[in-house]
Amino acid sequence: MTVSLSQKCIAEFFGTFVLVFMGCGSAVLAGAHVGFLGIAFAFGLSVVVMAYAIGHISGCHLNPAITISLASTGKISGKDAGAYIVSQVIGAIVASAVLYFIAQGKADYSLAANGLGANGVDQGSPDHYSLMSGLVAEIVLTTIFLVVVHGSTSKNSQTGKFAGLAIGLCLTLIHIVGIPVTGVSVNPARSIGPAIFVGGPALSNLWVFIVGPIVGGLLGAGIWKLYDKN
Amino acid sequence: MTVSLSQKCIAEFFGTFVLVFMGCGSAVLAGAHVGFLGIAFAFGLSVVVMAYAIGHISGCHLNPAITISLASTGKISGKDAGAYIVSQVIGAIVASAVLYFIAQGKADYSLAANGLGANGVDQGSPDHYSLMSGLVAEIVLTTIFLVVVHGSTSKNSQTGKFAGLAIGLCLTLIHIVGIPVTGVSVNPARSIGPAIFVGGPALSNLWVFIVGPIVGGLLGAGIWKLYDKN
Amino acid sequence: MTVSLSQKCIAEFFGTFVLVFMGCGSAVLAGAHVGFLGIAFAFGLSVVVMAYAIGHISGCHLNPAITISLASTGKISGKDAGAYIVSQVIGAIVASAVLYFIAQGKADYSLAANGLGANGVDQGSPDHYSLMSGLVAEIVLTTIFLVVVHGSTSKNSQTGKFAGLAIGLCLTLIHIVGIPVTGVSVNPARSIGPAIFVGGPALSNLWVFIVGPIVGGLLGAGIWKLYDKN
Amino acid sequence: MTVSLSQKCIAEFFGTFVLVFMGCGSAVLAGAHVGFLGIAFAFGLSVVVMAYAIGHISGCHLNPAITISLASTGKISGKDAGAYIVSQVIGAIVASAVLYFIAQGKADYSLAANGLGANGVDQGSPDHYSLMSGLVAEIVLTTIFLVVVHGSTSKNSQTGKFAGLAIGLCLTLIHIVGIPVTGVSVNPARSIGPAIFVGGPALSNLWVFIVGPIVGGLLGAGIWKLYDKN
Repeated sequence: MTVSLSQKCIAEFFGTFVLVFMGCGSAVLAGAHVGFLGIAFAFGLSVVVMAYAIGHISGCHLNPAITISLASTGKISGKDAGAYIVSQVIGAIVASAVLYFIAQGKADYSLAANGLGANGVDQGSPDHYSLMSGLVAEIVLTTIFLVVVHGSTSKNSQTGKFAGLAIGLCLTLIHIVGIPVTGVSVNPARSIGPAIFVGGPALSNLWVFIVGPIVGGLLGAGIWKLYDKN
Repeated sequence: MTVSLSQKCIAEFFGTFVLVFMGCGSAVLAGAHVGFLGIAFAFGLSVVVMAYAIGHISGCHLNPAITISLASTGKISGKDAGAYIVSQVIGAIVASAVLYFIAQGKADYSLAANGLGANGVDQGSPDHYSLMSGLVAEIVLTTIFLVVVHGSTSKNSQTGKFAGLAIGLCLTLIHIVGIPVTGVSVNPARSIGPAIFVGGPALSNLWVFIVGPIVGGLLGAGIWKLYDKN
Repeated sequence: MTVSLSQKCIAEFFGTFVLVFMGCGSAVLAGAHVGFLGIAFAFGLSVVVMAYAIGHISGCHLNPAITISLASTGKISGKDAGAYIVSQVIGAIVASAVLYFIAQGKADYSLAANGLGANGVDQGSPDHYSLMSGLVAEIVLTTIFLVVVHGSTSKNSQTGKFAGLAIGLCLTLIHIVGIPVTGVSVNPARSIGPAIFVGGPALSNLWVFIVGPIVGGLLGAGIWKLYDKN
Repeated sequence: MTVSLSQKCIAEFFGTFVLVFMGCGSAVLAGAHVGFLGIAFAFGLSVVVMAYAIGHISGCHLNPAITISLASTGKISGKDAGAYIVSQVIGAIVASAVLYFIAQGKADYSLAANGLGANGVDQGSPDHYSLMSGLVAEIVLTTIFLVVVHGSTSKNSQTGKFAGLAIGLCLTLIHIVGIPVTGVSVNPARSIGPAIFVGGPALSNLWVFIVGPIVGGLLGAGIWKLYDKN
């Protein structure tokens, strides 16, 4: 079948909607019940399930850092990459809006007190890590993420059908380790969505969660090229 | 091999029995020990294991919202769909009865105090979410669920053998996020079973968990058609 | 390659050793840290990993209830079944002995106070469920387990390579639901091992964990035949 | 494609970096939030994701005990094994350094009080197990680990593509059971990394986590040969 760019963009829009609605939703609606481990599974399983639901259409990026990293290795054209990123960011914003609507149905919910799953450093970091630790963590974690993305989908691999599982569980892994540091972004779209509604430090520190993941994504592509493509 | 409709109905009956007995059973018998994360895994793993145990017979729907959504896209005939739904509802009711019997073997169990895993809104919602939040949550969560069902089993996908894993883990994901809101239905049969025994608000609000999942299921089919089939 | 019966028995011995050492070990050594959910994953993952490690040799039963259920459908000969069961029971006993040795290296460990992962009903049940509830639970849970064993390995299924995952995760599911009731056996060998060292009620109630799983195992084979084999 | 030894070593270096950074990182940065179960998933998922990211390059050992065990069965040459082990140990040391840097960004972090995920026995054991229990546990757990490594990658198996999942989830299983005893090594490189920075008993007891895993790894190869290769 031939897939049009608009079909790919619908898939990326909806997939990123799911990632942000379910990931941030697990924190906002259920965080007090399921803890950081439950939130980590929510983010990771969102990617696992969407990988098998839309992977055959768009490749299931759901993340500008992934799209840019794949573009840097020539796996996606610049034009398509731009359309993907716009779709992802819009999906994330719509997800935050729907999540905000549902959260308000709880009597004691207020945006100021409960947030919307925004990322942060310093006072905005769950365990109050410094901006420098947060930035380094985002770079290192996204580097690892993109090595797994490139490696598990490599043409040299015989186990490409497991890539959705590997990449999604890698996001779970990343959240298990990193939530206390920054709440974990590794994905500019995922950070932009809630930040627009929450504002304040979530917005002024947003650059950390755009620059960090993009730098990490490019590093990941570079490391992958060292050991795989030849 | 040729599979008769009665064999398919036995599979759907037993599969839905497992989903409701194990899912609601995890809440009623073990909820105080395993928390919402454990309950979320119980519901999702029930689908994972039955998908591989009966998927080759009936497709493992276990859920009228799935059956109706598949019928809306012509993937199952109206006659078969009707038989599937009856089998699913009976399986859910029998599961609630067996669960009720086992639960009574605990000295301090009473139906009024401990329930039977019924879904609810307002005072029946674990975290007291409003009816409107609950209805919207059920619609959105079932929409996501059915996009994953249609997408992961698409004829255009090369990874169809992972569908059981993707769909089951999607139900785990949905429960991680949604248990605090409604206890999570996304499945009319799963809600009807316990409600019959629990009565009261579980019965008077039952329409939310019939209408919400069916609407979401049809929306999911529609979104899937936008990006995949053609 | 040709596999001898003695090779199969070594595989069953070692596999059952792993199931009991790791499953009961998670309860005895780590239960206070990982909770019932962690114990549930330990039992289930033991089966997942051994299924892929020895499945091509012996089929990875690790459980007399599975071996008897497969014998009832002619999938294993009576002679082989007997040798399998002896290997399984010896593996379980050796596992309990090694676990006992390691546990004694903790200053405040005593067998009377901390047990060895034995199953029980009434006062021996974690949440004090009656003998009748415990027996019914063991029968129903083993029935579900064996439907998944027979169904996921059916010759009519196209997804047989996922059987190890489905069967192992089914054991996790069963433990999530059933630990509060009996500690979960669904496996006579798993119950015999610790009971020999713990004695007392663990030994006098042992029949529940031999009869229940065997009855459930035969019921599971019967239900599977209703919908699958023809 | 032809893979050079230096490409393999880069893969082993980066893979072991991920295992130690994420595994020990989950304990140091997030242990108070995710508990031993979360740490167990972090170590295991690190192996799952790297198995699918670099398995087609180096086989994804990440562990001198695995490399030595494979060398004992002729599956890797002595020269390559030496290069692998050096790469693994360097990867582990670099991971500990990066983790140390990030951890220091938390105001109340001190190496003496919070450690760096080092393994230990007696007072260094989470639940104060004796050196003898710790050594036996490391030997038994690594034996199980290597039976799963050899068995799931056996040429006689039809399910070799699941090996990454089986081996990684086996490491999760091992951590669920063993963290209270020694913190779980089963991998000399994973123990050397943090011990160099932590010093003291972590360094003086390091031999336990070098000798135990190597002995267990060789035993695992021996048991596997009993039932499989012929």
